[in-house]
Amino acid sequence: MEKQNLKVRMRIWLEYEAGETLFGEGQITILEAIEKQGSINAAAKSLGMGYRSMWGRLKKIEQRMGLHLLIRRKGGVSGGESVLTPEAKLMIEKFRALQQDLNRAAEKIYDRIYS
Amino acid sequence: MEKQNLKVRMRIWLEYEAGETLFGEGQITILEAIEKQGSINAAAKSLGMGYRSMWGRLKKIEQRMGLHLLIRRKGGVSGGESVLTPEAKLMIEKFRALQQDLNRAAEKIYDRIYS
Repeated sequence: MEKQNLKVRMRIWLEYEAGETLFGEGQITILEAIEKQGSINAAAKSLGMGYRSMWGRLKKIEQRMGLHLLIRRKGGVSGGESVLTPEAKLMIEKFRALQQDLNRAAEKIYDRIYS
Repeated sequence: MEKQNLKVRMRIWLEYEAGETLFGEGQITILEAIEKQGSINAAAKSLGMGYRSMWGRLKKIEQRMGLHLLIRRKGGVSGGESVLTPEAKLMIEKFRALQQDLNRAAEKIYDRIYS
């Protein structure tokens, strides 16, 4: 069984309780859509998600991590604007670092086991 | 943003070409079901899968890895028995080692990034 050009792939996420995803690619997609669209409403529409379900996932992170993800400015026709807090940006940054380092580790471990 | 009892979880799989899974938890489930049930037919039934789709996934591994996963004995009412080859068992074993080592690496990397 040689290496045969196989590649290790992985999906990583953070759980708070067993089986309950707190943070991962889905949450990053939401945060990045808010950053791009400028509001939760517009982000929800752009992702084809419901406002409530989107906001619910963010609120869970805020409550469990004890931080704020969004700076919200209420008012206006669009129902207010939202921008990411530095803490939200840091969460994304740390998760990206985790993914990158783990992918590097995966290649090394794969090479060792499958050589 | 403290650690807050978060845990890194991951799903790992091996790809042959980008986007095409060759081996992972699903394939191991199939192989283990065959080992337990004694035939592809019985394994397919026990997993609620079609025989063809199950055998197709195994054949893909055999062709691309250049090995045999099953020792098949034809005949009988049940349509023949199958047992795993040593190569199939080794594939499972190596994949489990990959999972275990990567989970250990994940904890270390997580602790470093999120400390």
